[in-house]
Amino acid sequence: MGIISKKEIEVRYAETDQMGVVYHANYIVWLEIGRTALVKDLGFTYAGMEKDGLISPVLDVNIQYKKPCVYGETVTVETWIQEHGRVRTTYGYRVLKENGDVAATATTTNTLIRRSDFRPVSLSRVAPDWEEAYRANVVGVREL
Amino acid sequence: MGIISKKEIEVRYAETDQMGVVYHANYIVWLEIGRTALVKDLGFTYAGMEKDGLISPVLDVNIQYKKPCVYGETVTVETWIQEHGRVRTTYGYRVLKENGDVAATATTTNTLIRRSDFRPVSLSRVAPDWEEAYRANVVGVREL
Amino acid sequence: MGIISKKEIEVRYAETDQMGVVYHANYIVWLEIGRTALVKDLGFTYAGMEKDGLISPVLDVNIQYKKPCVYGETVTVETWIQEHGRVRTTYGYRVLKENGDVAATATTTNTLIRRSDFRPVSLSRVAPDWEEAYRANVVGVREL
Amino acid sequence: MGIISKKEIEVRYAETDQMGVVYHANYIVWLEIGRTALVKDLGFTYAGMEKDGLISPVLDVNIQYKKPCVYGETVTVETWIQEHGRVRTTYGYRVLKENGDVAATATTTNTLIRRSDFRPVSLSRVAPDWEEAYRANVVGVREL
Repeated sequence: MGIISKKEIEVRYAETDQMGVVYHANYIVWLEIGRTALVKDLGFTYAGMEKDGLISPVLDVNIQYKKPCVYGETVTVETWIQEHGRVRTTYGYRVLKENGDVAATATTTNTLIRRSDFRPVSLSRVAPDWEEAYRANVVGVREL
Repeated sequence: MGIISKKEIEVRYAETDQMGVVYHANYIVWLEIGRTALVKDLGFTYAGMEKDGLISPVLDVNIQYKKPCVYGETVTVETWIQEHGRVRTTYGYRVLKENGDVAATATTTNTLIRRSDFRPVSLSRVAPDWEEAYRANVVGVREL
Repeated sequence: MGIISKKEIEVRYAETDQMGVVYHANYIVWLEIGRTALVKDLGFTYAGMEKDGLISPVLDVNIQYKKPCVYGETVTVETWIQEHGRVRTTYGYRVLKENGDVAATATTTNTLIRRSDFRPVSLSRVAPDWEEAYRANVVGVREL
Repeated sequence: MGIISKKEIEVRYAETDQMGVVYHANYIVWLEIGRTALVKDLGFTYAGMEKDGLISPVLDVNIQYKKPCVYGETVTVETWIQEHGRVRTTYGYRVLKENGDVAATATTTNTLIRRSDFRPVSLSRVAPDWEEAYRANVVGVREL
């Protein structure tokens, strides 16, 4: 019953490559835009967290490309919390083309560290309100 | 006994983000530079293949980030053929920091299609010399 | 009395660099998003023009950086036609920070060529409706 | 008689766009790679300067595109000091295609500030050895 964030992104010309479609690495940027949108939908801002001296590096990315996206269309990135552990959060993603077709599915795992010394910190300790919201919004693996 | 291509890449300022390290999506670009280098080491050029009307889209990317890379260092991308099937090739990668530490490990799966109609083609049919070189250089999963 | 297009852009984390602000080359991408928006405001689509076999390469870019932009803010790109000649169009731009401060001013000059042979074509011949709209919307140099 | 740095760059697939050539904003990244190379040729490292708490933001970019660059070629960026003032340095650039044709000419103006408070600092005060090298290597405007 957790939130599934939906964020529209207008494909940029700069994002295409000589195949005539969006270059595959640029989807990874879209996933991060999706995370930013999800955090906002949960009532927080990632930029605000960084101001508090915390950063959330990506530990892994797994992405499956299904259909190409093209300049001129507006895609939608769906983002949700698939799993939320003590020190790691796994996000699930689905990128939809303008016509509704699935362009890609993905997961990323993120952790939380202190910017000053790159040491891991526990979300529940430094931001109990985030922790509560994250726990309440675990969606799990969606059948796609 | 297959070739493991080693390609040095000087980290660009443009590749960093406000965490002070290389932005994670930029590693995906490095993987492609690794593929280009491997193809060259095998005696071919990917640019030449595209001139023949063929393109090789990425079907999936799986990457694990181990240590951050920084502007000012020269990283090395190791690339090899992990698996080579009839219509798909899986490449393995290891990104090494200048000090030898593993920055990331990854795999990508690529296919081959005709640019004109995006239909799959068989490497063995359109480029038997590539097919032979690929078969002779399957390294498999490396213990890392 | 011509149109001055206003396009909001949410700053992406990927657009920052280790200075902690938006990397300067990324503004050039924003200018193009501004052009796309202006063309849309004029009633056309640049993607549509490319489908007709025409492309509009950039001949020059001149940009002055005034204030840094940061992740978490929404900037606005103002775009207008500064000059419209027989074979070249000069666009003017202003990038505004969320607080209204000018982040950058810029101009670009674009031409129009056929994709098939990279030969110049005249807008008035291939797209008289665009030509008319462009002529009617020359704003000139704005006092900024 | 000052140094003109020459830096080879292998064009990346990621740098192309759907026109089939290098996307124009990516040249701006190459200019910075040229600056990094020039600083190295002068006997310093820009990364080292940042470790000392100094950053060198770009104040303006002016670039003229002459010929497109394509994936598969190795371009050369020539970089030199065109002008060196008390608080600003203007660099000159020429991007050459693999066949020697000029792909682009450009200038950028950079300043020097303290990272901690974004206040301008004088190169001659914080790094007299850099200042001396810069003064000794002003090339001026080249006839291109």
